[in-house]
Amino acid sequence: MKTKVAIIGAGPSGLLLGHLFKAAGVDCVVVERQSRDYVLGRIRAGVLETVTTGLMEKLGLDARLKAEGLIEEGFNLATDDRLIRIDIKALTGKHVTVYGQTEVTRDLMDAAPERGLRIMFEAKEVAIHGVGGDAPYLTFAKDGVEHRLDCAFVAGCDGFHGPSRKAIPASAAREYEREYPFGWLGILADVPPCHDELIYANTARGFALASMRSKTRSRYYIQVPLTDRVEDWSEDRLWDELAARFDPISTHGVTRGKALEMSIAPLRSYVFETMRHGRLFLAGDAAHIVPPTGAKGLNLAASDVHYLAEALIAFFNGGDEAGLTGYEAKALARIWKAERFSWQLTKLMHRFPEDGAFEHRMQTAELDYVATSTAMQTAIAENYVGLPL
Amino acid sequence: MKTKVAIIGAGPSGLLLGHLFKAAGVDCVVVERQSRDYVLGRIRAGVLETVTTGLMEKLGLDARLKAEGLIEEGFNLATDDRLIRIDIKALTGKHVTVYGQTEVTRDLMDAAPERGLRIMFEAKEVAIHGVGGDAPYLTFAKDGVEHRLDCAFVAGCDGFHGPSRKAIPASAAREYEREYPFGWLGILADVPPCHDELIYANTARGFALASMRSKTRSRYYIQVPLTDRVEDWSEDRLWDELAARFDPISTHGVTRGKALEMSIAPLRSYVFETMRHGRLFLAGDAAHIVPPTGAKGLNLAASDVHYLAEALIAFFNGGDEAGLTGYEAKALARIWKAERFSWQLTKLMHRFPEDGAFEHRMQTAELDYVATSTAMQTAIAENYVGLPL
Repeated sequence: MKTKVAIIGAGPSGLLLGHLFKAAGVDCVVVERQSRDYVLGRIRAGVLETVTTGLMEKLGLDARLKAEGLIEEGFNLATDDRLIRIDIKALTGKHVTVYGQTEVTRDLMDAAPERGLRIMFEAKEVAIHGVGGDAPYLTFAKDGVEHRLDCAFVAGCDGFHGPSRKAIPASAAREYEREYPFGWLGILADVPPCHDELIYANTARGFALASMRSKTRSRYYIQVPLTDRVEDWSEDRLWDELAARFDPISTHGVTRGKALEMSIAPLRSYVFETMRHGRLFLAGDAAHIVPPTGAKGLNLAASDVHYLAEALIAFFNGGDEAGLTGYEAKALARIWKAERFSWQLTKLMHRFPEDGAFEHRMQTAELDYVATSTAMQTAIAENYVGLPL
Repeated sequence: MKTKVAIIGAGPSGLLLGHLFKAAGVDCVVVERQSRDYVLGRIRAGVLETVTTGLMEKLGLDARLKAEGLIEEGFNLATDDRLIRIDIKALTGKHVTVYGQTEVTRDLMDAAPERGLRIMFEAKEVAIHGVGGDAPYLTFAKDGVEHRLDCAFVAGCDGFHGPSRKAIPASAAREYEREYPFGWLGILADVPPCHDELIYANTARGFALASMRSKTRSRYYIQVPLTDRVEDWSEDRLWDELAARFDPISTHGVTRGKALEMSIAPLRSYVFETMRHGRLFLAGDAAHIVPPTGAKGLNLAASDVHYLAEALIAFFNGGDEAGLTGYEAKALARIWKAERFSWQLTKLMHRFPEDGAFEHRMQTAELDYVATSTAMQTAIAENYVGLPL
């Protein structure tokens, strides 16, 4: 097999990139280790910036997103007894859209056959070869057969655990990392949300997030110690905890229901600082991780994909190498700012075991300040809707 | 002796408060442990908010401040090779005034005789009595004689090391504290400043501040380890260090001169949370300390004094206790926000020994963000000029 760009990973980054290439007439193949059903079963974030919805619109794949997505013109920071609404529409003129990442992935997958985007699922043992030269290729096993995919470039859209980043020697890169001393215990359930807009709450019981995927599907999280296991939490115990945190501050109060999913995720800030190694380019989680506070993960992947598609399409259309050379700097400028915002919001809204009374008062003082400052609310809002490309 | 308000401390807080009382016809006496010359010899900050200059204006004691103070309409955050100017005038419509705290103190002292403000210098062993009842009094020794000053209220304007805060039992208060793992080595010299506006710089060599007291007197600081002693630093070594940090980014470059003063000060965030104990009220450094980053110390003292004068004058004029009851809450709301700003700016601009590569990149990302965001610049500027009373 032979193609222009071999894309590793059929998550939203790889699929968006693939569709952008196809729309521009650049041949590509997406190679995915998991099955289609497995990929569609992954529960991820659900708040889309206009950068992300704009890509779907540009591709003409936004019909369902438009019909089902919830336009959100504000969100809330909260304490035990107070909501501070950030009116993102009034402050920035923009909005975000609540629409599950899983749904974005589904829309992109569903459109693949009609657009001629080839996705090879269950491609095992994907290995990257020759990116230092001008004839790279992938090898992988599928249905017991060894395959080789020759290409001009490899796009690593295979997430934090994929082979792309690992194919880059440590000597050619630098890693930046921060781990947080807690995790998020999440629950997804078909119940109406407790509030019409998201609430990030820093309460005496710890952080909690009231979020949603639609008007009938809620997504909640609470901060838990890293030592907690999902098995330690019954659904009832989690609903009790959510009710204690959100009933006093939300419009509708917490409605309980059967968990569609319950899981604990660690929080991490991570940047792998090179996004290019020869003919291999990284995009999205393969190169960087943000803590989920602020919902920047998918949106940052989308902006990487935007820059990378632009660069490679320009190269194939006219042999212009400037885009390829500039990709990393462009992407990193936005990545570091989003890392900063996610880190800052994480620090503001969580209880850190190492923090003393002074640090907690600093959180309170910052929230008091945010509540009274249009400038600070604007700064938060402009990051939340996504800084300009 | 008998008076309405016994004020402990003849620094700017105590003197401002005394003058406000005299202007309103409230009798008071200021009691100061040190001599007049000692008080005037203390080198302190030099950036005044309009809250502070407004009090001097209200008192009609701003003639010299107006003639000699430098109106500053901007200041700079910097890295090794870049200045980010915060245009405080354009962003907030306000400005700050560069005028030494020592000069404020001198103006207030000079006006004391003509205004009938009594200041007792060299009052030793000041002790506070009976603030739990309605007949408090001070005792102190002066010129070998024991004195007693009866009063209706005691105002503790005696700084971090004075007796006022110590007179409040620990059980009636709560302390919040953070110490920083470095100090500021400062130098004052009669040389023109390297730049027309202040520069706070986070450089690879550590934090540095280029400041001034006038067009011919400069005040510089650099971050040094807590283990450093002034004796470890020759003037030449300090000028070399300042030149290395400021020559690449300042308009005029560093001019060297004979040190009028060189000293190392530790950095501390501290709030003592009760500002009232019976008939004793605390104001300024007696109740709270900020790190000098952002120059909030004197200005916060001035707003405390404003609130306290207002409350006590209302009480004496009409017996209204509401102001007295509300003083602490009003003062603390502004104090905590200023503590937050000073802490945040300290964290943004210094190299912390415990920080890793990720945290340093967060500083860089924040400065990059500040450089491109009007909202964030406005948030910084509105804190720098002083939040509204």
